[in-house]
Amino acid sequence: MTTFNTPDQTEAAFYAAFEATDLARMLAVWGTGGDVVCIHPGGDLLQGLEPVAESWRAIFAGARPPAIEHRSIRQTAAGDLAIHLVEERIGPRGAGAPTNRILATNVYRRGTDGWRLVLHHASLPLVAGHAVAEAAPERVH
Amino acid sequence: MTTFNTPDQTEAAFYAAFEATDLARMLAVWGTGGDVVCIHPGGDLLQGLEPVAESWRAIFAGARPPAIEHRSIRQTAAGDLAIHLVEERIGPRGAGAPTNRILATNVYRRGTDGWRLVLHHASLPLVAGHAVAEAAPERVH
Repeated sequence: MTTFNTPDQTEAAFYAAFEATDLARMLAVWGTGGDVVCIHPGGDLLQGLEPVAESWRAIFAGARPPAIEHRSIRQTAAGDLAIHLVEERIGPRGAGAPTNRILATNVYRRGTDGWRLVLHHASLPLVAGHAVAEAAPERVH
Repeated sequence: MTTFNTPDQTEAAFYAAFEATDLARMLAVWGTGGDVVCIHPGGDLLQGLEPVAESWRAIFAGARPPAIEHRSIRQTAAGDLAIHLVEERIGPRGAGAPTNRILATNVYRRGTDGWRLVLHHASLPLVAGHAVAEAAPERVH
């Protein structure tokens, strides 16, 4: 089993597995407990490794390996927890700079087998500036 | 200045301020550093207290105070960091159970003035099950 010695190593492995659409490498990145959590852009909550694995299996099935750039915007760490806010850019390979921009909060936890991904919460910014969907005044009225 | 002694207290104050559309109480919940981060559902990245404050000002402006229920699905903590995955339900008051369901990752950090919110990443599940927007095979092809 691969051991990642820093959250950055785990993060690099996550995006490398994603870019390769390699399910085994993707699963090696995640924590093994039932408390892993994944929210894909526009997706619902997935809890536990099996639903998370199934989601990546479905995403990778039939997809050509994409080009992915990732940039860590902000990192916070304490003890065995690290939180990275990441800007992802995803698109077809060989088509210039990827243009699908996604924001992800990635949480890594250190265990006896090194740093593992335990939470991935990704979203697609739909509007410029700030959205008001959370308060949804239009819907509240 | 209000001091929150636990992340749960901060979280309760966040949703109470949101429900009251009370900007001063909302801002009292957040960390004061330039490294606070907020992503509203469908929204872009807001970094620093001033843009975050402006977003809440805009959300609260003209909105009738909504009804909000929040449920902590998963909590992880280490040292001065706590991560809560929360299910929010937001809707108009007096209309029965709120039906807008939002998933939020909230990160709290303990400083000399107690626990403060430093990251709020919220998203609206658009599809049942898992979304494949992140890999976006349709767009990749």
